[in-house]
Amino acid sequence: MHHQPATVRRVTIVDVARHAGVSTTAVSKVLRNAYGTSSQMRSRVNAAVDELGYRPSAAARALRGRTWTLGVMLPDVRNPFFADILDGVAEHLDGTEYQLFMTSGCDDVTSEARVTEAMIDRSMDGLILIAPVSRPAHLERVGRTVPTVVIGRHSRSTGFDTVNDDDFAGAGLMVAHLAGLGHRRIAHIEHRETDPVRLAEMPNALRADGYRHAMLSHGLGEHIDIVSTGYTRDGGYHGARILLDRPVPPTAIFAGADVVALGVLDALTEAGLSVPGDISVSGYDDITLAGFRPISLTTVDQGGHRIGTTAIRLLLDRITDPGRPAARVKLAPTPVVRATTGPPR
Amino acid sequence: MHHQPATVRRVTIVDVARHAGVSTTAVSKVLRNAYGTSSQMRSRVNAAVDELGYRPSAAARALRGRTWTLGVMLPDVRNPFFADILDGVAEHLDGTEYQLFMTSGCDDVTSEARVTEAMIDRSMDGLILIAPVSRPAHLERVGRTVPTVVIGRHSRSTGFDTVNDDDFAGAGLMVAHLAGLGHRRIAHIEHRETDPVRLAEMPNALRADGYRHAMLSHGLGEHIDIVSTGYTRDGGYHGARILLDRPVPPTAIFAGADVVALGVLDALTEAGLSVPGDISVSGYDDITLAGFRPISLTTVDQGGHRIGTTAIRLLLDRITDPGRPAARVKLAPTPVVRATTGPPR
Repeated sequence: MHHQPATVRRVTIVDVARHAGVSTTAVSKVLRNAYGTSSQMRSRVNAAVDELGYRPSAAARALRGRTWTLGVMLPDVRNPFFADILDGVAEHLDGTEYQLFMTSGCDDVTSEARVTEAMIDRSMDGLILIAPVSRPAHLERVGRTVPTVVIGRHSRSTGFDTVNDDDFAGAGLMVAHLAGLGHRRIAHIEHRETDPVRLAEMPNALRADGYRHAMLSHGLGEHIDIVSTGYTRDGGYHGARILLDRPVPPTAIFAGADVVALGVLDALTEAGLSVPGDISVSGYDDITLAGFRPISLTTVDQGGHRIGTTAIRLLLDRITDPGRPAARVKLAPTPVVRATTGPPR
Repeated sequence: MHHQPATVRRVTIVDVARHAGVSTTAVSKVLRNAYGTSSQMRSRVNAAVDELGYRPSAAARALRGRTWTLGVMLPDVRNPFFADILDGVAEHLDGTEYQLFMTSGCDDVTSEARVTEAMIDRSMDGLILIAPVSRPAHLERVGRTVPTVVIGRHSRSTGFDTVNDDDFAGAGLMVAHLAGLGHRRIAHIEHRETDPVRLAEMPNALRADGYRHAMLSHGLGEHIDIVSTGYTRDGGYHGARILLDRPVPPTAIFAGADVVALGVLDALTEAGLSVPGDISVSGYDDITLAGFRPISLTTVDQGGHRIGTTAIRLLLDRITDPGRPAARVKLAPTPVVRATTGPPR
């Protein structure tokens, strides 16, 4: 035999009114600190509120004002770089009234539209969108409807704030490191991107641009070799397989993201190649796993934690002052040299 | 010069009423399909709704019924095992009206209370709580207020459903594998747990129990060696350091979770020990990284994806029928032997 659980009903304003022996309008007035309530009325209502444990629900508050709810849209919960950003956001919110809710698995225009709409529909006070792929007009519309900060998109929109690292410069730093070790055949694995707007705004596209530009400026233009897959471990695995099949394979692979570099290491292990003895590998992001000794990945630190704290500071500021000019924050990346890069054979 | 973004105001019921030239009460009646509205009134209101693009907000709907919002509480966004569960949940929700929101960073009673309260306060239709550490009375209260499924807690409560793998049996499978390879000094790293209730209900405690029981049944009682740290990479790292400092170190370390095993591998790499040549290592969970070739971790597959789909099916079922008896689902774990375990020296 099982118990039949009884559902506990939320105490409503109607219960408070009945308990206090007054009208719901009177209760509402007292709760809103409106004029026209007697001190006797106030004490009766407040006593009933206390006795019944009444708390106005977020849904009811949402009809009046703030919901103290913030939304974060992530493209992929499996990319541990986003956890660094979230840590920065959560740390800054600690001790405030705000509650943060995340959504993940948004990596196309349709699901991003659905998720941003869902967040607006739930009257969230502000949104942080991480590496969105939506068209600028959609982001602009979201930003004009609710205070929004976009991370990982070099947008020129005036409707929201942006926080990025300097992806173009970061890629250049990694090419300089590899060229400095004596590599010439340095290949790059990028995230496939065909949309012309995203080619100008997405971090992945700017990293590929930075790679190309740095190769040229190091006199390595003839060795430019870009494989287009995706910013996932699978993308890195398949990209490395393609590069290993070249008539003359590269001596170094610069993956556009650390998760991609993990896939590259997977393919090299399978091929029986040693790193960096046979081939050097580097990534981008500096996820915590990059510092894990069995991996020890050379990478570019884009300061995920700092990106997170910067974004949440901007968002709270924008919630207070939705009309202020859009902020464009670009943080400086730093190379982190570990054990997966060395001189070529 | 910056543009001053104009905030686009949501169309409200007041706008609809004004546009239709009727009262807000009349609009509300039409929208609720209430009695007492003329066909002329209905067509005027519906025309105004269409012309203004009015949609009742989730906040307003919440005051009447479902919000089509589900909440998932995660202890830690960095543990990739939870991503497998989320994949299973999201796959099952695909194509439904439901929107899923997650919170992470809840690993103590206080923050769990805050988060569950926040989810209830936002009128979510149902909750999935993953490995909560709250007291049974709190979980019971949550389950009686909103349809709830708890994953990763062997609870006997009647107020919510539970989905678990058989952690006791899974730990026994791993001890059997290691003992079968010839290991006798098999140590275990557990998550520190002192609360008597959680000692009976938490997966980590049941895995430690399963280890103890299996060691005894294999005649290895004198070699039982449990280090209590935490289910994180740091916990694995420090646990391994303690075990390596023993006068006679173990020949195999069975970590209670894959993230813990990663920390063990980190410490062994630092100590210059080879795996499994010098020492065997195994985990629990079968996170996707366990199959990553440079790691190739022997572990126990608890089927995270299946746990996720099972939980969301139960939750949708419970939303439809909140009074039905509590379901207790226990899934069978399977050992996955990869490259980190071998015979002792």
